[in-house]
Amino acid sequence: MITMKPKHTRKIALLTEYCGTNYAGWQRQDNAYTVQAAIEDALLDLLGQEVRLTASSRTDAGVHALGHVSHFTLKEHTIPTDAIPRALISKLPPDISVLQAVEVPETFHARFHPVAKTYQYHILNRTIPSALEHDRVAHVPGRLDVAKMQEGCRAFVGKHDFLALQASGATTKTSVRTIYRLALKQVSQERLVIEVEGDGFLYNMVRILAGTLLYVGQGKIEVESLPERIVSLDRRQMGKTMPPHGLYLAQVSYNPSPFSVSHK
Amino acid sequence: MITMKPKHTRKIALLTEYCGTNYAGWQRQDNAYTVQAAIEDALLDLLGQEVRLTASSRTDAGVHALGHVSHFTLKEHTIPTDAIPRALISKLPPDISVLQAVEVPETFHARFHPVAKTYQYHILNRTIPSALEHDRVAHVPGRLDVAKMQEGCRAFVGKHDFLALQASGATTKTSVRTIYRLALKQVSQERLVIEVEGDGFLYNMVRILAGTLLYVGQGKIEVESLPERIVSLDRRQMGKTMPPHGLYLAQVSYNPSPFSVSHK
Repeated sequence: MITMKPKHTRKIALLTEYCGTNYAGWQRQDNAYTVQAAIEDALLDLLGQEVRLTASSRTDAGVHALGHVSHFTLKEHTIPTDAIPRALISKLPPDISVLQAVEVPETFHARFHPVAKTYQYHILNRTIPSALEHDRVAHVPGRLDVAKMQEGCRAFVGKHDFLALQASGATTKTSVRTIYRLALKQVSQERLVIEVEGDGFLYNMVRILAGTLLYVGQGKIEVESLPERIVSLDRRQMGKTMPPHGLYLAQVSYNPSPFSVSHK
Repeated sequence: MITMKPKHTRKIALLTEYCGTNYAGWQRQDNAYTVQAAIEDALLDLLGQEVRLTASSRTDAGVHALGHVSHFTLKEHTIPTDAIPRALISKLPPDISVLQAVEVPETFHARFHPVAKTYQYHILNRTIPSALEHDRVAHVPGRLDVAKMQEGCRAFVGKHDFLALQASGATTKTSVRTIYRLALKQVSQERLVIEVEGDGFLYNMVRILAGTLLYVGQGKIEVESLPERIVSLDRRQMGKTMPPHGLYLAQVSYNPSPFSVSHK
């Protein structure tokens, strides 16, 4: 704390981890408790100002975040920016942690300026579900051909029209997206993590992608058929939409990155 | 399912994983919901018999288990023993999973016959607590000398009177226990796991042991002083009792082991 003189108006970006289990997703709603509302309430309590967060991503109910990014504008206030995370902790529920707060240039925009986003989909592949992780991983019993799933990842990498991976009813200007990286890691005998990095994702895209790779692993979809299934632009050619609680928003990347820590 | 003929009375051992957050510990109580009560209720629902579980260990409120062991006696019933875990799932809350059920000899006793027990204590060493693991790890900010903590582990291994590591007020016949193995693993930059295997543990012993190793890591206790602190038999010579939510009952070992899976 170098100075107690109120700073001028600042634009501040927050890096946030949360467990989505007890929230109706990120975005503020009238009749449900959301992550955005919880953080805005805590900021009001801490700073005495009503602020409105602009988010990199609006995660659905039950979806978790390791490194969600949002920004807000803080009018004249004495608090040092880097003191905000620790001061906010006591105001926040324990399933939300603001990991870092940094002052960003006026030109920074959490939603419009990401150069990439990384999601993870966590799968527990064993007969009995996990008590400790029942709301943190998707439980998938039965044999999976992991090598086939890994082979299947290759079909999705690159710039494609991913309309077949979009939930029906969604409206976006274009369904063309670029997947920079898609990998399936076997992190333990029972645990698989799908990690995908791209320039952006359609509604439910990662959950449908995970369901499609699982169909490959279960022998319900031939790995060789994936390229034609993608170009079909037909949702019915893909696997089922996997549940939200296996999904993690891992990282939102900006160039330059405003944050010195990454929680990916 | 080979036969539908009711089997004779069977003694059955259960291997159970649970998240302790929402329970007042293992042991059945009149005015609080416990893990034992939840499983006994589910067994009554499934089997139509009131059974009473005998447990390897009575974990405290908030303490988790990766591999808790209990046994019960089942009177004439058609259900195959190995069908019990999957049938129980729908009757159990999602934060309790019975991983395996096996028929054991009449001489088997979950509480009296373990040859070893293994506990883990999970620590998150960073400034900001974790939203996703707030009830699964103990949050310890500040610098820790991990090498000193690892050196400190050696002082506790072997057969000792561990009265100094027992919560005051506890009554046991003897406070002599043998620690077979004690290790501190740095599983990631932020994450430490203390793993200890012994022939048995005094009340709060692992939580006080974790607190003592943390005092070593924080420079509050000299690692060279540990042997004399142990022989002092004085609780005040040790570190503080760490909170329950970092503690996991990892494994209960029998010889021979009744289970074919280990969830440690």
